[in-house]
Amino acid sequence: MNSWIDIPEQSDFSIYNIPFGIGSTDGSPFVCTRIGDQVLNLNRLAATNFFSDLVDDLTVFQQSTLNAFIALGKPITNAIRIKIQHALSDNHSTLKNNTDLFTPFQKVQMHLPVAIGDYTDFYSSIEHATNVGKMFRDPENALLPNWRHLPVGYHGRASSIVISGTSILRPNGQTKPADSDQPVFGPSKRLDFELEMGFIIGKKTNVGETISTSNAEDHIFGMVLFNDWSARDIQTWEYVPLGPFLSKNFASGMSPWVVVLEALDPFRVEGPKQEPAVLPYLQYEGRRNYDIVLEVVITPENGSENVISKSNFKFMYWNICQQLAHHTCNGCNVNIGDLMASGTISGPDRDSLGSMLEITTAGKNPITLHNGEMRSFINDGDTVTLRGRAENGKNRVGFGEVANKILPASVQK
Amino acid sequence: MNSWIDIPEQSDFSIYNIPFGIGSTDGSPFVCTRIGDQVLNLNRLAATNFFSDLVDDLTVFQQSTLNAFIALGKPITNAIRIKIQHALSDNHSTLKNNTDLFTPFQKVQMHLPVAIGDYTDFYSSIEHATNVGKMFRDPENALLPNWRHLPVGYHGRASSIVISGTSILRPNGQTKPADSDQPVFGPSKRLDFELEMGFIIGKKTNVGETISTSNAEDHIFGMVLFNDWSARDIQTWEYVPLGPFLSKNFASGMSPWVVVLEALDPFRVEGPKQEPAVLPYLQYEGRRNYDIVLEVVITPENGSENVISKSNFKFMYWNICQQLAHHTCNGCNVNIGDLMASGTISGPDRDSLGSMLEITTAGKNPITLHNGEMRSFINDGDTVTLRGRAENGKNRVGFGEVANKILPASVQK
Repeated sequence: MNSWIDIPEQSDFSIYNIPFGIGSTDGSPFVCTRIGDQVLNLNRLAATNFFSDLVDDLTVFQQSTLNAFIALGKPITNAIRIKIQHALSDNHSTLKNNTDLFTPFQKVQMHLPVAIGDYTDFYSSIEHATNVGKMFRDPENALLPNWRHLPVGYHGRASSIVISGTSILRPNGQTKPADSDQPVFGPSKRLDFELEMGFIIGKKTNVGETISTSNAEDHIFGMVLFNDWSARDIQTWEYVPLGPFLSKNFASGMSPWVVVLEALDPFRVEGPKQEPAVLPYLQYEGRRNYDIVLEVVITPENGSENVISKSNFKFMYWNICQQLAHHTCNGCNVNIGDLMASGTISGPDRDSLGSMLEITTAGKNPITLHNGEMRSFINDGDTVTLRGRAENGKNRVGFGEVANKILPASVQK
Repeated sequence: MNSWIDIPEQSDFSIYNIPFGIGSTDGSPFVCTRIGDQVLNLNRLAATNFFSDLVDDLTVFQQSTLNAFIALGKPITNAIRIKIQHALSDNHSTLKNNTDLFTPFQKVQMHLPVAIGDYTDFYSSIEHATNVGKMFRDPENALLPNWRHLPVGYHGRASSIVISGTSILRPNGQTKPADSDQPVFGPSKRLDFELEMGFIIGKKTNVGETISTSNAEDHIFGMVLFNDWSARDIQTWEYVPLGPFLSKNFASGMSPWVVVLEALDPFRVEGPKQEPAVLPYLQYEGRRNYDIVLEVVITPENGSENVISKSNFKFMYWNICQQLAHHTCNGCNVNIGDLMASGTISGPDRDSLGSMLEITTAGKNPITLHNGEMRSFINDGDTVTLRGRAENGKNRVGFGEVANKILPASVQK
């Protein structure tokens, strides 16, 4: 399949992708997709009656989030995507003469794509959980007893999830220095990223209903890149016994384009073998992992890009269908727009670690950037960029990026 | 102050209360208050131009949540409350002849009062934290090192918070029996309540902004009763290292009437002395605790009420201003409608414990109900009711109740 749009060879936004997002150029938000370097305004396209066989209520294309659009249901949103894909590859398409529909991506302000009701973060990479367990608990028994039996997860803060491009203040917080009996308050000294992906709920359930591994994909609209920013020194002090709180909820970063699950279909792979065998409600059939190449980049102020890690979403021990089946096995309901993130995605090698905590062994082994500067954790002025893409020779489906620059902590009053 | 409405002597809804909620009688929701046994429809009252000096956009009174009403801001919502209070105590009020405004409470369906964006649960009762620490960790060092330095909290699930009167299915989940190496899946055998109160955010902040203890009350609209239903056997197995998840998120119960902070003003009391001294951002002035009598009632199927605990909100070690200052000290933003719950409110005595876990010492010492039945935890068919009220001889300001009946777990497919 080729498009009459000029698509750069290395573009994440090939004709096989057709993700969804929310953009604006003059303040009014619209649902859009991206093809190559062009943003296609679906609100304007809808106004030409392009979707008249699929959608009655065109206001879904002019909202500030995708939630109402997603609520059309997968049969409709998938048909919309296919129809766009066909028009963009049909040399006789009427879209070709309607230049009002397209805007170069640099001129479009992207917004958080969904209103997130609840955000859950899992902990589903066995390499990450093992690395962290070795550092903070027992190196001989790095994985806690429950880890191989259920996808460990916890609730995060939805309000402070920000779109790529948003600068983030280094958080202040309470920490206890190793050499002190008393805690202190001030800027975090161990600010870290976490390389994650997240999936967005596409179909709601009611309290008391469950979702099985076999119908989980019906409830998943698509995926994004996610940076679960973490202040390690705050986390260490606060997290017992009820889990991370202020060490995480100052901000998290999300990429603007939701890549629908159907676009990722060609990139399905087998997951890691799960031993011991999981309980029946967590068993699944088919290939539920995805081969998505991920990378982490640090760009210091006035410096160049440093790729500091290359990982892959295929490493996940627990897949997204298992995560959703577990999350709802007790009757917990989900809503359209809810976000479920993977947890840090680390691979088996030294160069596939998904956090500075692991890369520098909690700061003990700093890395050197191109400009000669050292990093144990993330400095003020650094921009951290996460990128992800799936490709198999002929098709390329990418996520673009989530990038956040860290600004100095606000001064305590 | 007296009202021309007949108010039963023991009513929670005296002329000093005037809480806010969302009711309906024919499906259309309306903002309302309650006085004695009568619900006053504020949407109908607004239509008589009663609030024309205060509110331009009367649609805030006909929404399915209080969020838009709360967004009017405390100066307006407090003026609305005072105006209602005066009218209800003025023998010459025009409301007296307008019987369309009032409906007996039994005929009004109450709804969840706010759309809750994010829900946070604290762990702020020193008695509860000590009791739990003694049972599950080290009896000699029951409180973890961070506990007296910061109000420990964690994020909970907002989607499954249900209004009083909603029946709740016993959750299924993964547990590991003490006598087994392997986990099993099935209905929780240790279903518990947690006696809590929660406050509702009345004024938003942006990411990066903080709220101090001295301006925290400007951001708090009011309070509710809250039952943080907990499956102890699921919790024990799942909660390390990232905190409670499925053990809590199957459902939580909330009372329908939001009692505004100003109504609780006469019931302010000193909080417990905090030792060691807390860091400056957690220090506060004035009386920030509230004397609110709380009780827990179990009503078995076809049985009578059993009051199994009497506690008090005044026991809280960390007050609501400290909780909010801590929550935002890292720049975490809050939105109107966000809920922040106290954690289990236990008092110092055997009869003031806020959970079955504490009352029965994790099931070791079951209690006997009036009908002779024993309870270690909560059985199918039991209704658990939490009640709360403040009173000081002349004024009485109560919360009504939050009651949920437990139904048998759904059968695994």
